[in-house]
Amino acid sequence: MEDRVILLDFWSSSWAMRVKVALAEKGIEYESLEQNLIDKSPLLLEMNPVHKMIPVLIHNGKPICESLNIVQYIDEVWKEKSPLLPSDSYQRSQARFWADYIDKKIYNNAKKLWKEKGEKQEEVKREFMEGLKTLEGELGDNLYFGGESFGFVDVVLVPVTSWFHSLEICGKFSIEAECPKITAWIERCMEKESVSTSLPDPHKIHDFVLLLKQKMGIE
Amino acid sequence: MEDRVILLDFWSSSWAMRVKVALAEKGIEYESLEQNLIDKSPLLLEMNPVHKMIPVLIHNGKPICESLNIVQYIDEVWKEKSPLLPSDSYQRSQARFWADYIDKKIYNNAKKLWKEKGEKQEEVKREFMEGLKTLEGELGDNLYFGGESFGFVDVVLVPVTSWFHSLEICGKFSIEAECPKITAWIERCMEKESVSTSLPDPHKIHDFVLLLKQKMGIE
Repeated sequence: MEDRVILLDFWSSSWAMRVKVALAEKGIEYESLEQNLIDKSPLLLEMNPVHKMIPVLIHNGKPICESLNIVQYIDEVWKEKSPLLPSDSYQRSQARFWADYIDKKIYNNAKKLWKEKGEKQEEVKREFMEGLKTLEGELGDNLYFGGESFGFVDVVLVPVTSWFHSLEICGKFSIEAECPKITAWIERCMEKESVSTSLPDPHKIHDFVLLLKQKMGIE
Repeated sequence: MEDRVILLDFWSSSWAMRVKVALAEKGIEYESLEQNLIDKSPLLLEMNPVHKMIPVLIHNGKPICESLNIVQYIDEVWKEKSPLLPSDSYQRSQARFWADYIDKKIYNNAKKLWKEKGEKQEEVKREFMEGLKTLEGELGDNLYFGGESFGFVDVVLVPVTSWFHSLEICGKFSIEAECPKITAWIERCMEKESVSTSLPDPHKIHDFVLLLKQKMGIE
């Protein structure tokens, strides 16, 4: 049977970008269905009745939800090309540990950072930068979080970097100044076609953030 | 080489109980080292420098952190006896989805419920019960979340049920009245030695909660 792969998508979502990077790494063709997140489609509500959120991967009619889970599923199903998780159980557990850390410390705080103001924003920024510096230490002098090759943790972290330009403006801080190794790693990842074709222009993200702020009445 | 397995533990932690249930299911002998969570041991700080939290599984000297991650590691390393995750990739993705849901909706809210008061407590309770009812629907008429046999989602959910008695008293509500299937499932799980020997007496948990409330100045 020919595989039919559909992604319920939204262009600025770094969670959806994880799935796009993973699919691109594996060379899987898929159809992206851009979703209206205000007025949700019957398809989205049917495919993710619990969270009603994108991304959802629909593989031969069956839905898989939650981005970390989807990336693991993709890696398990299409295992031959570009393995993402290490084959050794201990190394796998370490990769899953860091993926969870990235969700909690980086994604959760990035989501809040541009919306907050004053002391609350400073707090979120502190936690975000603390997380990023921990990751800077974990990366060390490796080319990728996966070591010599681009792997699971790289797929999980790289999408949110398309928001960094906007976060730096909103939060008035510089990621590059504090995390030179992460900055070099971002450039290295962007040289990969799987990444550069899956991530939007950071300026387009910032325009979108400005629009959201305006709609939400945040100065 | 003989496996050496150590658990950095705390008796009332339902996250640590997940690891104990999984190890018991697999028939793995281990040493439990009860930790002081106020004055943390050099061993805990060395083994989990990022989160500084229990549970940590130390397998032949190497640490694995975060309970969901540890249970997956145990299932991968000791795969012959009592497989926890399904072998089919799609079913695996569904099990991981529900495990994540249980963390977010049940554990996170259980952790808050006994500490909160008034309107805030009602809100946490609503979200907690909404999560539990969704799980009641997912369980349906199956014996276990794993279907006919006790599996990953069962291991992930059952520990927090040792807190239900105390949560019901603190929040003045009845889980049994709203979730009869979950209640029957808890009884079914408790018939398994791996569960009954890994979970503490719910009355002991409630005494502990009362002590914590007193220490924290919560009426």
